[in-house]
Amino acid sequence: MSSLVPEKYIEERRTQVDARLNRLWKERRRYPEGIHEAMEFSVMAGGKRLRPVMCLATAETMGAKSDELVDIACALELVHTYSLVHDDLPAMDDDDFRRNRPTCHRVYGEAMAILAGDALLTLAFELLAGWGNYYDRSDDALLMVSELAEAAGTEGMIGGQVLDISAEGQDASLEDIEAINYRKTAALLRASVRIGGIAGKADPRQMNQLSGYATALGMAFQIADDLLDLRGDISKTGKEAGSDEAREKATYPLRIGEKNAENKANELYQEALSYLENWGEEADILRYLARLLVFRDK
Amino acid sequence: MSSLVPEKYIEERRTQVDARLNRLWKERRRYPEGIHEAMEFSVMAGGKRLRPVMCLATAETMGAKSDELVDIACALELVHTYSLVHDDLPAMDDDDFRRNRPTCHRVYGEAMAILAGDALLTLAFELLAGWGNYYDRSDDALLMVSELAEAAGTEGMIGGQVLDISAEGQDASLEDIEAINYRKTAALLRASVRIGGIAGKADPRQMNQLSGYATALGMAFQIADDLLDLRGDISKTGKEAGSDEAREKATYPLRIGEKNAENKANELYQEALSYLENWGEEADILRYLARLLVFRDK
Repeated sequence: MSSLVPEKYIEERRTQVDARLNRLWKERRRYPEGIHEAMEFSVMAGGKRLRPVMCLATAETMGAKSDELVDIACALELVHTYSLVHDDLPAMDDDDFRRNRPTCHRVYGEAMAILAGDALLTLAFELLAGWGNYYDRSDDALLMVSELAEAAGTEGMIGGQVLDISAEGQDASLEDIEAINYRKTAALLRASVRIGGIAGKADPRQMNQLSGYATALGMAFQIADDLLDLRGDISKTGKEAGSDEAREKATYPLRIGEKNAENKANELYQEALSYLENWGEEADILRYLARLLVFRDK
Repeated sequence: MSSLVPEKYIEERRTQVDARLNRLWKERRRYPEGIHEAMEFSVMAGGKRLRPVMCLATAETMGAKSDELVDIACALELVHTYSLVHDDLPAMDDDDFRRNRPTCHRVYGEAMAILAGDALLTLAFELLAGWGNYYDRSDDALLMVSELAEAAGTEGMIGGQVLDISAEGQDASLEDIEAINYRKTAALLRASVRIGGIAGKADPRQMNQLSGYATALGMAFQIADDLLDLRGDISKTGKEAGSDEAREKATYPLRIGEKNAENKANELYQEALSYLENWGEEADILRYLARLLVFRDK
């Protein structure tokens, strides 16, 4: 594990991921131009690269080196970005702004935004396959393809978006909200950590603990996000405060109140840490990241 | 290779693929329901399963057994269907009918159609990974993931759709049309045949010949399709005749005339066959399929 202080570690990994993402557009043929521009615009919009960082931190906790794993980490960011681009579409959440910038379809049009999303998802799988072929780790790469496809599919992110849309304006139960949060948010975070585990050759027991950690953390992360939506100011979150409320979205804070939702997030945070109980200080970065994801102001 | 007459061979493989596709929906969890319905509706709309059949026929030409390869074949059909669902969307080609049935977004709404397309693409990669893990053929499965991702990506189908949309109403050159046809149609057909080649352990020389065959055939297939659009009646094609013309689509027949386009298709068909010159009668099914794809009335 790196001996860097956590803030510095995260900053370095982010820079590493951003550098690779930047190279990605330069490497690829520029024809047809428009689609690559729309992809780059969406990916390079200044995200926090949380999923790539979680993946790399997990792999490094297991003793792997991050240099060889950047393509895998980037694949996770591409899938995350694809989901944002499609979720923002007029037929879905109809969002005009994200991260203080106009959304992809506002700049490039709806057709191009649909295709850019499709292309980002496709490119993610291409990156995983390319990595496995290059490093001669086909078995591991194929497990990663499975993990990613499941997390992105109808039992994961896509199913979550379906439930999210159909829950709008309905009197959603806590169970419904949990089902949405698991699929929309926790599934990809879980996959990011598990893929890091595969990269770092985690054994089955470690893999179970990593899954428990990431799932609880993912659920807490979504509640933290919903709390920010309720309270946050647009200069920090890039979104207008209260947009979930206006849309009658199914969220914990709107369902059980701010204070109860805060308690729930804290509980899930503690649960996440408990899965790392028997891990030494090599897992400190995962503990730090958990704190960062749940207790944040943007 | 099967000793069945070709018509019977194709019918049997189609049945095999359809049976597996049918099982696919039953196997998967039904929650959330709507998305699986929309996926099933689109896939089970009575397509000819040309890409799965091409894939299986290629693998069997190399001596492989089709029973173990049906999931791979289905993955190709899912990617084909995803592309139709997204291409039909209001923001793209805005088609209300396909194969004499209303399109996915007409029945399930735009949001669900976008998500169903996303889910079909994702499921295709899940199937390939599952196949490789199950049969312990990770190396081959990972090559298939690469092939499929490249064919589906910005240098393949997605790039083709971008060019197609931007060429509408423009005075497209023959080169533009060729670039569109290669990406929109030939790329996935080429991947289907190459994936069949990987399944059948083709050597590099064979793989090159298969690629040449499939590329020329894919180009001819698209021209045949455009000719049908120009002449066809809706009872056979499921589309109204002349829709390309009305939209000023960039196609060979509209650019160089029916007769010249027919000659071009025939030329490409001969080129496709030439790649199989040194192949024996085990490749007769590939020759038969080429004929079927280029000279058809629906």
